[in-house]
Amino acid sequence: MKAIRGAFLDFLYDPFYKDEQEAVRYLTDGILVIDGEKIADFGSYEELGDKYSDVETTTYANRLIMPGFIDTHVHYPQTEMIAAFGEQLLEWLEKYTFPTELKFRDKAYARQVADRFLNMLLANGTTTAQVFTTTFPQSVDAFFEACSERNICMIAGLTGIDRPGLAPPEYLDTADTFYANSRDLIERWHLKGRNKYAITPRFALGSTREQLDRCGQLKGEYPDTWVNTHMSENHKEIAQVAEAFPEAKDYLNVYERAGIVGPKFTAGHAIHLSDDAYRRMSSSKSSISFCPASNLYLGSGLFMIHKAKSVETPVLVGVGTDMGAGDCFSILRVLNDAYKVAALQTQKLSVLKGLYLATLGGAKSLLLEDEIGSFDPGKFADIVVLNTRPTPALAFRAENAIIDESRPVEEQRRERMEHEAFGMMMLGDERAVEATYVSGNLLYQKLGNHIH
Amino acid sequence: MKAIRGAFLDFLYDPFYKDEQEAVRYLTDGILVIDGEKIADFGSYEELGDKYSDVETTTYANRLIMPGFIDTHVHYPQTEMIAAFGEQLLEWLEKYTFPTELKFRDKAYARQVADRFLNMLLANGTTTAQVFTTTFPQSVDAFFEACSERNICMIAGLTGIDRPGLAPPEYLDTADTFYANSRDLIERWHLKGRNKYAITPRFALGSTREQLDRCGQLKGEYPDTWVNTHMSENHKEIAQVAEAFPEAKDYLNVYERAGIVGPKFTAGHAIHLSDDAYRRMSSSKSSISFCPASNLYLGSGLFMIHKAKSVETPVLVGVGTDMGAGDCFSILRVLNDAYKVAALQTQKLSVLKGLYLATLGGAKSLLLEDEIGSFDPGKFADIVVLNTRPTPALAFRAENAIIDESRPVEEQRRERMEHEAFGMMMLGDERAVEATYVSGNLLYQKLGNHIH
Repeated sequence: MKAIRGAFLDFLYDPFYKDEQEAVRYLTDGILVIDGEKIADFGSYEELGDKYSDVETTTYANRLIMPGFIDTHVHYPQTEMIAAFGEQLLEWLEKYTFPTELKFRDKAYARQVADRFLNMLLANGTTTAQVFTTTFPQSVDAFFEACSERNICMIAGLTGIDRPGLAPPEYLDTADTFYANSRDLIERWHLKGRNKYAITPRFALGSTREQLDRCGQLKGEYPDTWVNTHMSENHKEIAQVAEAFPEAKDYLNVYERAGIVGPKFTAGHAIHLSDDAYRRMSSSKSSISFCPASNLYLGSGLFMIHKAKSVETPVLVGVGTDMGAGDCFSILRVLNDAYKVAALQTQKLSVLKGLYLATLGGAKSLLLEDEIGSFDPGKFADIVVLNTRPTPALAFRAENAIIDESRPVEEQRRERMEHEAFGMMMLGDERAVEATYVSGNLLYQKLGNHIH
Repeated sequence: MKAIRGAFLDFLYDPFYKDEQEAVRYLTDGILVIDGEKIADFGSYEELGDKYSDVETTTYANRLIMPGFIDTHVHYPQTEMIAAFGEQLLEWLEKYTFPTELKFRDKAYARQVADRFLNMLLANGTTTAQVFTTTFPQSVDAFFEACSERNICMIAGLTGIDRPGLAPPEYLDTADTFYANSRDLIERWHLKGRNKYAITPRFALGSTREQLDRCGQLKGEYPDTWVNTHMSENHKEIAQVAEAFPEAKDYLNVYERAGIVGPKFTAGHAIHLSDDAYRRMSSSKSSISFCPASNLYLGSGLFMIHKAKSVETPVLVGVGTDMGAGDCFSILRVLNDAYKVAALQTQKLSVLKGLYLATLGGAKSLLLEDEIGSFDPGKFADIVVLNTRPTPALAFRAENAIIDESRPVEEQRRERMEHEAFGMMMLGDERAVEATYVSGNLLYQKLGNHIH
């Protein structure tokens, strides 16, 4: 057993649907007790300190300790081509993406990038991600091998694309090879250790009807797998999907017809959805990965977070970097862009709503809330230690917070925390990440503690 | 005399109107010779190296050396309130801005913040800015005193707001006090050393007609001063301006009627402009400060850069952080948001266009191209030394650039530089800034050279 002491922030409820102050759990002096991989106990130090006085305890002073961030949509093979210049979706795929991803036929190369990718996630405080790979099964093996070494919770799967013309011939798979390789990979990796498998048709346009049907077949055979794909990102893409699947009433319906929509189904982007599609996403308990950095970077459009998180048609929502179309590995930078996407629609994304999406909201969107997303005992000890004042600008901002000192001390503390955390969300990035724990192990620690 | 050797990038022409490769001047091995405050000579090392072989030379290997960045719209008194949560323009002013700016009645406090502000600009590679202050003349004195100590080129001025109800009574000035104080400050600071004065009505709505007329009177009396203000940022604000000035045909016309529109007039934002207003901005040789970080942060809207930089109605354009409504001090982060604002309008902001706006474009927009913005001999030696690979993500991206190796070596070098500089523009921030020179003096150097 070991313990961590400091200020903790996590969520008990969804602040989009409950009073924010009730939704959040903020302990100014808390203790988190870790037994092996998992959280054994959690509460205020005042209550629990005596009980664990003989447990080796690491104290983080002036830090904010949160559940590790969750990135619900990211492409590990694109690590090296992050922020490729200038194209919209379909041109970008052709010009940059496939030439890069072809390198992942080489398993050793794939493994090297997987290690880099995971280390960058950890340096950014991300402890779980839902990850696209390539059409090459060795790129999936390499990824899960790297994950297994770290005992980290990742969802990934072979990423199918079999429609001629949508990728170079040497990149394409077929419905049959996709099916056989997916089965094989599911058997080898799904629920082995913390690894989780997602059946992953890249996007509707990239798959033939046969490949999508094979996805449905796989989901029938392995009902506890995840399904991960893209949806309704870009007007041109949507028009092409309509043309390729004339029998489907809309983009979502392509996936519905394949039998893959439902719990554990995540649609990346989902920017341009009709009210009816929102209703069906909601009633099927499907989820959306909101990827604002990517959506702005590619000029795809503005995701309607207020619609997805409405009372009428509530949809599970997590946030994704969508690196490499997204221009960062940092969930904090993603929240900055999320704030801006909301602001352009006269919505306000509060810091607590943002941090919820990055933690418990992401976990719930992936149906992983029993394993990750908060500090409830029994969950895995996946933790990020944050410095809300990592730069001179944030330090000066924090020192000058306007706090109403006539209010009770606890309320002042909360207000100060929210002020600083919001600064971190808007101006922060990996510099705010001091340390990252996965399954109770310290896997990342920032070098030095000087202010840059 | 002293010299700097390394790879240099600046602009000879505007890449929005000329072939980008002709517009840019890229020397892979160049030398810049500094005599006192100014650039004495500049060219390739091969040509000039022998001539200056006995001059003390600092060599920056694997760096990109550029003219210092120019921030054409920023509020120094808002340093401590950067990224205040959640309001649109008018509410934000009331709730956060005025309470903070009232602190600048205290000159010692103002000076302390001015020093911090200038140091943060330098750490971000910014060597010239056009700066808002407060209604308190001592806040202007404090600022110019801090600038004078650094021999840095800043444009600033007393920031008038005299309309009752638009600011707390103790923050308001009057048309008369504004006029008298502005005159006094112009006499004291304008063109003293590198200091430059801007007549600064905060925004049309904040000023009575009398105050704006006083601005016109000042401009008549001191025709070589600058004029700096806000314009057409937000729909609600625009409607209120129309109501307050029924005699004006649009927002721009309020300023035209006051006699302040013309060369050296900068309108911050100018998001929502009619074709006619574009025409008048163009023909009057006025300029716009494009502040995308702020425009997204406040949800103000998408500036039409393609319209401002059109052949039909070309308007001078620089970029501004608009810190504190903008959420950064970094011109690189501003260019990231500029890219996204353009992308949402299916425009592509290339790295050379972006870097032009940040340097020579900014200088031209302020009619300062004789003093700053490029490495032409005779200009001041205001220089930023950039590391295009300051983070592991950018280093890995740079190592894996897809470069056509069948092309001539010089073209490959250019392509590689553009690839890396674009990465820096999209993922970079103050971490990319290695050193900043002002008037030939090294005023900022990054601590340590390790990769974070």
